[in-house]
Amino acid sequence: MQKQKILIDGKRLKHTLEEFSRFGLTENNGVTRLSLSEEDRLARNYLRSCCEELGLTVKVDDMGNMYATLEGTENKPPIVLGSHLDSVKKGGRFDGVLGVVAGLEVVRTLVENNIKPKVPITIANFTNEEGARFEPSMMASGVLSGKFEKSAMLQKTDTDGVTFREALKSIGYAGDEEERLKEAGAFLELHIEQGPILEHESLTIGVVECVLGMVCYEIEVTGESDHAGTTPMSMRKDALFATNNLIIEARNKLSTLDDDLVFTMGRMNVQPNIHTVIPNKVVFSLEARHKNPETIKQVEEIIFSLTGSSANEGCEVKATKLWGRDTVWFDKEICDSLEQSSNSLGYSYKRMVSGAGHDAQFIASYIPSAMIFVPSINGKSHSEDELTTWEDCEKGINVILETVLSLQSQ
Amino acid sequence: MQKQKILIDGKRLKHTLEEFSRFGLTENNGVTRLSLSEEDRLARNYLRSCCEELGLTVKVDDMGNMYATLEGTENKPPIVLGSHLDSVKKGGRFDGVLGVVAGLEVVRTLVENNIKPKVPITIANFTNEEGARFEPSMMASGVLSGKFEKSAMLQKTDTDGVTFREALKSIGYAGDEEERLKEAGAFLELHIEQGPILEHESLTIGVVECVLGMVCYEIEVTGESDHAGTTPMSMRKDALFATNNLIIEARNKLSTLDDDLVFTMGRMNVQPNIHTVIPNKVVFSLEARHKNPETIKQVEEIIFSLTGSSANEGCEVKATKLWGRDTVWFDKEICDSLEQSSNSLGYSYKRMVSGAGHDAQFIASYIPSAMIFVPSINGKSHSEDELTTWEDCEKGINVILETVLSLQSQ
Repeated sequence: MQKQKILIDGKRLKHTLEEFSRFGLTENNGVTRLSLSEEDRLARNYLRSCCEELGLTVKVDDMGNMYATLEGTENKPPIVLGSHLDSVKKGGRFDGVLGVVAGLEVVRTLVENNIKPKVPITIANFTNEEGARFEPSMMASGVLSGKFEKSAMLQKTDTDGVTFREALKSIGYAGDEEERLKEAGAFLELHIEQGPILEHESLTIGVVECVLGMVCYEIEVTGESDHAGTTPMSMRKDALFATNNLIIEARNKLSTLDDDLVFTMGRMNVQPNIHTVIPNKVVFSLEARHKNPETIKQVEEIIFSLTGSSANEGCEVKATKLWGRDTVWFDKEICDSLEQSSNSLGYSYKRMVSGAGHDAQFIASYIPSAMIFVPSINGKSHSEDELTTWEDCEKGINVILETVLSLQSQ
Repeated sequence: MQKQKILIDGKRLKHTLEEFSRFGLTENNGVTRLSLSEEDRLARNYLRSCCEELGLTVKVDDMGNMYATLEGTENKPPIVLGSHLDSVKKGGRFDGVLGVVAGLEVVRTLVENNIKPKVPITIANFTNEEGARFEPSMMASGVLSGKFEKSAMLQKTDTDGVTFREALKSIGYAGDEEERLKEAGAFLELHIEQGPILEHESLTIGVVECVLGMVCYEIEVTGESDHAGTTPMSMRKDALFATNNLIIEARNKLSTLDDDLVFTMGRMNVQPNIHTVIPNKVVFSLEARHKNPETIKQVEEIIFSLTGSSANEGCEVKATKLWGRDTVWFDKEICDSLEQSSNSLGYSYKRMVSGAGHDAQFIASYIPSAMIFVPSINGKSHSEDELTTWEDCEKGINVILETVLSLQSQ
């Protein structure tokens, strides 16, 4: 006979998510809750009060990360559940906050069911995942995992010249280094997919195996700026025409590599950008993501080949690597456990990859970590149109809860 | 026996051009002399003093245009010689000023040779040809010829919110409407070519037959902005990829029309222009110039065809006409006369077209007009690199002088 499953309270979840969305609500039902802003402060205070209602004490570390721990009956490193409360400008109501509320709902459900876990459970909110006010993104998890230097991060400024250090202090969330998340048995992050795949395939849960490796290049094409009316076509060095040729060439070559490869020219600036002047410079970004480092290497070879392309219209072409990251693989056992939980709850699921970056990819460097995704309607995120159904949010958290319980008994 | 030619004084010309270039000289030997700026005021005052030295009275009309007339022995409408003293930001030392100085040098040469012309000769400086501070360009000649409404032009503002009317008054060049250039026997404008053709063909004089007709369209491509890392290639509506396809299609089709057609995509803006986001909108300009209105019509058909292109990557494509102008043909007899003058002076020359706009194209609507070009080294203009040799400047003015003398005897 199958044991009765413990499930979270869907109504309470909806109410909690709606409460959080009030902090920075935009007129189009999105959220602007930049890291360390007044809206972020209010959301953090609300999280604190929710945790305190459960009898938990909220601890804050030197990067402003928040932790609230439900003690376990055994003195073991905790299972950590969390994500981030900050948003981009005109972002959505689910990105980040869903993973924090997952932790809250799991603990609430255990408390109301009088379940005392063996292993402690920590709800976590990581500061400045988005990097929308202070670059880089995933700043605090980056410091925790040693990817970023704390002193450099504290000096980062927003567009008004306010430093991260000042902002952290001014909202009252500058804590102690000794409170940092150190040892843990597992880190689980529930997040919206931010892509269209689950919805497209009518699936509820994505068990995320990895965060894709990527490279981002800046390509600079330099021609000559001449008068658009007086310069015969044959005597031009048009940087835009050259760019046009190079992008076609790159797209053709990249398309042959692998169906899973994604590549984007998201940023392009034309100089002098006047309709009567032949462009003398175009600078554009080319980023590509794939789990296989060999494929990324082939992408880089294609990018290098553009600098010697014969389709350059007499222009100079220069490619500069802005950054890259290796694919981060999540903990295999936790992934298996998440898959089993989805299965035992009767939710449809698939193994998938994350094309976007998440705190979990940094935390994974020192804590066994994994993520699950729930569907983003139309794949929208970082947008006021961001939407995930309440049911899918609930199911996602049920998978987390089920996995926490199953990890308890290991 | 050939009559001894009267020629201008090359040394004095060089000195005069150098004096004018002091007003707004940039560190790279260019000129920033925006219309109605302090630099423009100083250049105008210098022109006035040069004219007064010759015993001429400078009259100013309600658009700030300046006229100085050497009286003729007969009471006939004058031959007008001129261009403009304003420049673009970081422009060159020859664009515009050369045509004004041509008038000055022609009159100086006649005065020093004690030649009293039958027909009066007027030196003219037209206000705000460039439109760099107050749009549109060719503003004052546009008002003179009835293309633009004076009241609307007076209200045009610069980026600081200063109106044209205020600026005109503050530099002391707001004159009377009754002083406007009305009837005239001819208008001759000497200008640098602003293109590479004369230099490329090793010619000295271009006799300009027409100013090319043109159209300028704005093409807006609307797709969907999704996450660059999470959206499979097959599920994107990438406005930049669509634009890329459309530009290739347009270039291929336009290239088949006529070798003399020039077309340019000079302005392109990408939204949201973030390397990690698939562009949801690209807006770019497509302008084309040709003397034959049938060719321009074919260009427009090609532009319209883009809106239904199958290469749109699922994006919407909209084309909006920003403006167009018909080809302006210059006075055939004056062109013949300019050609004969070049010939009789032994200068190499060709008939050509102007791809750029000039005051003469508006003045031509009510005064028989024509232009000549002298070579622009490397075709550069609207740039600090703008250069024309002193010898070519001198030869250009000699052609104007010779033509003025020949028009006298008609």
